[in-house]
Amino acid sequence: MKTLKVGLCGAGNVGGAVLRTLIQSSQLLEVQGGVHFDIVQVGARRGKEVVPYEGINITTNLEDVATNPDVDVLVEVIGGVNFAYELVTTALKEGKHVVTANKALIASHGNELFTLAKENNVEIGFEASVAGGTPVIKALREGLVATKVKWFAGILNGTSNFILTEMESNQSTFESALEKAQELGLAESDPSLDINGTDAAQKASILAALAFHVPFDFSLVSFEGIEEIELEDLGYAKELGYSIKHIAHGELENNVVCVSAYPTLVDNETLLSQVGKEMNALEIFSEGIGSTVYYGPGAGPEPTASAVIADLVDIAKGGWDLDINSDDQNKLEVSDRKRAARYYRLQVNDEPGVIAKISSLFGDQNISIEALIQHEAKSKENLESISVVIISGEISNNEAVKLKNALEDLPEVFSGVKKFRIHAGEK
Amino acid sequence: MKTLKVGLCGAGNVGGAVLRTLIQSSQLLEVQGGVHFDIVQVGARRGKEVVPYEGINITTNLEDVATNPDVDVLVEVIGGVNFAYELVTTALKEGKHVVTANKALIASHGNELFTLAKENNVEIGFEASVAGGTPVIKALREGLVATKVKWFAGILNGTSNFILTEMESNQSTFESALEKAQELGLAESDPSLDINGTDAAQKASILAALAFHVPFDFSLVSFEGIEEIELEDLGYAKELGYSIKHIAHGELENNVVCVSAYPTLVDNETLLSQVGKEMNALEIFSEGIGSTVYYGPGAGPEPTASAVIADLVDIAKGGWDLDINSDDQNKLEVSDRKRAARYYRLQVNDEPGVIAKISSLFGDQNISIEALIQHEAKSKENLESISVVIISGEISNNEAVKLKNALEDLPEVFSGVKKFRIHAGEK
Repeated sequence: MKTLKVGLCGAGNVGGAVLRTLIQSSQLLEVQGGVHFDIVQVGARRGKEVVPYEGINITTNLEDVATNPDVDVLVEVIGGVNFAYELVTTALKEGKHVVTANKALIASHGNELFTLAKENNVEIGFEASVAGGTPVIKALREGLVATKVKWFAGILNGTSNFILTEMESNQSTFESALEKAQELGLAESDPSLDINGTDAAQKASILAALAFHVPFDFSLVSFEGIEEIELEDLGYAKELGYSIKHIAHGELENNVVCVSAYPTLVDNETLLSQVGKEMNALEIFSEGIGSTVYYGPGAGPEPTASAVIADLVDIAKGGWDLDINSDDQNKLEVSDRKRAARYYRLQVNDEPGVIAKISSLFGDQNISIEALIQHEAKSKENLESISVVIISGEISNNEAVKLKNALEDLPEVFSGVKKFRIHAGEK
Repeated sequence: MKTLKVGLCGAGNVGGAVLRTLIQSSQLLEVQGGVHFDIVQVGARRGKEVVPYEGINITTNLEDVATNPDVDVLVEVIGGVNFAYELVTTALKEGKHVVTANKALIASHGNELFTLAKENNVEIGFEASVAGGTPVIKALREGLVATKVKWFAGILNGTSNFILTEMESNQSTFESALEKAQELGLAESDPSLDINGTDAAQKASILAALAFHVPFDFSLVSFEGIEEIELEDLGYAKELGYSIKHIAHGELENNVVCVSAYPTLVDNETLLSQVGKEMNALEIFSEGIGSTVYYGPGAGPEPTASAVIADLVDIAKGGWDLDINSDDQNKLEVSDRKRAARYYRLQVNDEPGVIAKISSLFGDQNISIEALIQHEAKSKENLESISVVIISGEISNNEAVKLKNALEDLPEVFSGVKKFRIHAGEK
């Protein structure tokens, strides 16, 4: 049986789960994985108090682990970018493999890290960086190795999905849904990277590099978070047969790759629309075989540990031996060119001719109106202003922004027009 | 770059797609898989006319491929059991790896084949044998390698799922739905192995061997097909919040493994219930991480070729090196002990006291009634007989059969009581 000598950096929730699984499931891992794990050293700043096992070599200086000559593979689960980057580069230069759950690290330093790994003839595992316990990286680069990926669309931020599900199911406001997520440990005390779309965009960037063989370049990923979504939008979306999800998206067309993460209307007939709570899901559309979808827990100590250990088993067996920075004709560009239908919600003065004026503005810009909803004003308080919801034909990002600005320039339209993408699905 | 010398047996729809992909996507496979494929020989009974490529060594004697000393790996895509078994055992004995899409072969001869492979230090790839282009074998044995699987539930027969979807969406009868499936090439001219549950049960047997480390033993897999499902059942299921799907199921409890494939009511809140048409999906429930779900095309030339080639890439990189027949305490038993709620539909005489009699029969057998539907008789023609639908509490297979027999013994109940399982989902 193969033996892998592991050095673990980080003994928090995720590190603790990795350690617990390696120790308590050692027999299962030998049967299922054919690998025996030797835990050479654990780096934990708080030392022994957070590592409740006997006979483990513990250091409070995490760099010890990265330079320990007995360690074959460094597991980095401390999070954050700067110190993690130092640890990982040290380990790679020392000829150690690395397994990390750190999407921010990969998204921001992926090119250097994979180049360094190649130079030192070692591997980097990062299954846990996207979709946690759901093996989407494995599916993408191994299961679908013989297919050409055209696009992917994923619900990759559990916090955002939980908040949207809460709002949709319980008519909660954004604020109270976020509070509930925090109470349940599904959102951090500062949840900004989750709800402003950064986290999902980083994951999209990683998937795009794998799917389309383009270098990591987070500056070319366009994204927005879910903060602008209001209960009223979820209601109108439902009326039109959609759910609103935060969708990380990547697409290859004519050798141009566009990557983005936006609040998006998803048809209620699709599987993605059915993904609730804090769950993640990724749809990958390949030439010839069409869509495959992967659903599961996107975060949490056990799911993340499961992905980390799956990477360790793969490394014990020789790793992936893939040149992630391989030359390709594909080029990553900002996603301005991507065409998609859009949802617009306008607050307008309830006066004669306003719909005609809005409609002709669409016509002037040569944009079709696919659907329009204007309900009767129900409450006396809102008599002066009504909501109008319009689904446009397929337009580019630039056209969509231009249209929004033009709408807001109309004297009858209040500022703060809502605008969300619509996911077209199979094509 | 690694090179793998491939011998292909079978040049029908699937073999043709394997060959086409290996030839036309060779550059993509080098970039994504890091492997160059050398097509050493193609065995096709009809010879050159079915292999429209120049410079390929073709033989009409398939055994030539299995004994060709230049071949590293034999791809078996001829289907059927007996001759495929001969070819595969010959190749294994000659020290060649094997990749097969043949679930019947693996389900019936798995133990011998994996033993033979081990003795000869070669690998058998069988990703394509379950769920076609959806990499469920890879997810199960690699992605979830660090988890203990408790159960799986899958829609693994595309023909059955297409027929049920047609019946549900278009109110087609079983017969006309089957006819449509045949017209679309989704059902064979003799569809019996698909619609009587054999195909799904074979796949369940393969998944169980992997998930629970038990030997292949198809004689212990209990199954039924979809022939008994009527439009009326789909209607009642919908009323109760369920869809009826053909579910392949495996479960581990107290070291006992039960494997089955039955028509099953699936809660409409679950992803499995949303899997329509000929698509496949597999839900795997693991300790610690809960459910992950894999969805995609379960058959067809391109999806099957995608899975076959993914196996070839894995073999080029060293394979899985797993002892599939490893010793374990788990024991496969017939699934009589599995407890599940049941759906019963009875045709009864519309006379006073009949519901009371049926209810007390449930009470006598100590089985709870979770739901009961009896609609008013609407048409004058059916005044003498009405349908009664009952959802029972959780009972074993034996109890369910005993209850059905007792119900049919009542003079007021017509014979032909329908009985389907209900899938409980997470636990």
